[in-house]
Amino acid sequence: MNRIEALKQKAFEKKSHDGFLITNGMNLFYLSGVLGATCLLIPKKGENTVYVYGVNYEQAKVDGKGFKVEQVKRGENLMEKIAGQAKTCHIKNLALDALSVESYRSLAKSLGGKARLKMQGNLVSELRQVKDEHELELMRKAAELTKAGMKAASETIRPGLKEIEVAAEIEYAMRRRGSWGTAFETSVASGAKSAFPHGGCTEKAIRAGDLVVVDIGATYNHYCSDMTRTFTAGKPSTKQSKLYEIVKTAHEKALEAIRPGAKTKDVDTAARKVMENAGYGEYFVHGLGHGVGLEVHEAPALNPSSKERLAVGNVVTNEPGIYLIDFGGIRIEDTVSVQKRKSEKLTDGFYALENER
Amino acid sequence: MNRIEALKQKAFEKKSHDGFLITNGMNLFYLSGVLGATCLLIPKKGENTVYVYGVNYEQAKVDGKGFKVEQVKRGENLMEKIAGQAKTCHIKNLALDALSVESYRSLAKSLGGKARLKMQGNLVSELRQVKDEHELELMRKAAELTKAGMKAASETIRPGLKEIEVAAEIEYAMRRRGSWGTAFETSVASGAKSAFPHGGCTEKAIRAGDLVVVDIGATYNHYCSDMTRTFTAGKPSTKQSKLYEIVKTAHEKALEAIRPGAKTKDVDTAARKVMENAGYGEYFVHGLGHGVGLEVHEAPALNPSSKERLAVGNVVTNEPGIYLIDFGGIRIEDTVSVQKRKSEKLTDGFYALENER
Repeated sequence: MNRIEALKQKAFEKKSHDGFLITNGMNLFYLSGVLGATCLLIPKKGENTVYVYGVNYEQAKVDGKGFKVEQVKRGENLMEKIAGQAKTCHIKNLALDALSVESYRSLAKSLGGKARLKMQGNLVSELRQVKDEHELELMRKAAELTKAGMKAASETIRPGLKEIEVAAEIEYAMRRRGSWGTAFETSVASGAKSAFPHGGCTEKAIRAGDLVVVDIGATYNHYCSDMTRTFTAGKPSTKQSKLYEIVKTAHEKALEAIRPGAKTKDVDTAARKVMENAGYGEYFVHGLGHGVGLEVHEAPALNPSSKERLAVGNVVTNEPGIYLIDFGGIRIEDTVSVQKRKSEKLTDGFYALENER
Repeated sequence: MNRIEALKQKAFEKKSHDGFLITNGMNLFYLSGVLGATCLLIPKKGENTVYVYGVNYEQAKVDGKGFKVEQVKRGENLMEKIAGQAKTCHIKNLALDALSVESYRSLAKSLGGKARLKMQGNLVSELRQVKDEHELELMRKAAELTKAGMKAASETIRPGLKEIEVAAEIEYAMRRRGSWGTAFETSVASGAKSAFPHGGCTEKAIRAGDLVVVDIGATYNHYCSDMTRTFTAGKPSTKQSKLYEIVKTAHEKALEAIRPGAKTKDVDTAARKVMENAGYGEYFVHGLGHGVGLEVHEAPALNPSSKERLAVGNVVTNEPGIYLIDFGGIRIEDTVSVQKRKSEKLTDGFYALENER
């Protein structure tokens, strides 16, 4: 119940709320251990209740230890039900993490003015962005599986092979070692398509001389990881090697900047400066990174307009890249855990354009 | 531009809107062919504009043929930008497909009373639920890949193997044949866990006599498929076989009921009656099915409280199941295309508890 207590402290003691309605699936899992429920009501006074439809009711009863688990019947108005419970618990000032416009209106209507509503999703994401040791263990395992996938990519990529054939080998290697799935769609983008940061992965065959950007992430126990490497199919050209070295330097500079207390904006700048000084600033078309955890994109963000500071327990990506239309793209990405002394790269290795065939 | 024209007809001619703001990623892809954009503004008078951040800007310019593609700069207020364009296009009555409460408020504020807002996401999902012949071709391919995955499951499942090892073989088989990924997390739920409809897939080893529910879906060109089969690890028991026959009969009855004009509720009833007559009605804990397309769960729903009628071009699942706590679960699911005469099962085969080892 520590996570619930931490949220209560943030929302009830530091703010003036007396109830919190959680509807985001991963927030709900983080706080209750239940997957596939529709919402969780945390009242200041009263029982923490997970609401779940019949299809996942029995599983929720097993997973939701310490929670009241209430079945939502088909055809029942869920927001009316929640409003009824909020009234029973005398909630006057209800915080919400995420709700559709339609559900928000339905809830407000059902409450009939008995409680104020306020969107406070940031309070939950602030908790989630600081990982405890158990979470870090799961993320290390996810990262280790991802490295096995990258090894498969490195051993597989060659001219003539289709992008999706490389993806097949990557995912098979991760799964066989214990991956629960992929954190996002495996991306093997070759040639001109590698110049698109989200190039994806198609039936296109890799050609000799192509840059191949491999962006992958295994999951373990619902935790994600995220890793990108760029390879060439064959010997790299002089220009490919030159650009690679710029990205690698930016990646190293950013890693040095990742430490507790650092402004997320400044970490981005550490990498961006390297690109700019080399004359490629305008081709680094995205932020340096993002938080990783139960979701592959979560807080904190690391980009020129982000406003947070890093703290021990944050896990973030470090992923500078250069993208030249018609030439191709290069990105190097690691998932990094912010530690007291030295940051810990959860993903690692394969820092060379030439693969291991 | 046919899809845009169809939406304009629904929203502008039949309703009184003069603008439509699309923010749901799959709606946006369906209407524009662009992935990874933030929104699409369709004015009654003016240019259809895709708004996209720098990271996906170059790709959007390639994919968004016939659309104006506008880059959103970091730090720009997106809703202010949209409101500005809405004013330029003299939009007074703007339809929205999906928006967070925060974005809705920000948009309303930026519009400063110049336009009314109305949530109309159903207008887009009504379009999406009727597939054209090209979409059906992609879905047939996705289903064919899924069948290859089920064949791998059938050939692999045996006592002692871990659930995730079976998942590895399934996904590898689908990928090697050209799958773009999985429509949802591959589920191989064995033993008592098979009694949970969303049992997932863990490091647990399959034991002799276990029921194993395999729920999988390949994707192809962004289109999904969905298929479930139940196997036993070894010879099925009398009770397992008896329950299987009930589910199989329910599955067949529902398939007969799937035809243009049928009430979705009645298709559910066709299966549910079989379960009830056999004394297992209360163990069929979910609706019979759901639409499938660019998302694995979309309109129409087939359950006791759904209110639609089926039409030619709908693609829906038919997935009755019985779930007995501590004993296990049985589900048989196909993805079915609603056709004029006879419905077409996109997934097919493996209708027996004993697998093919």
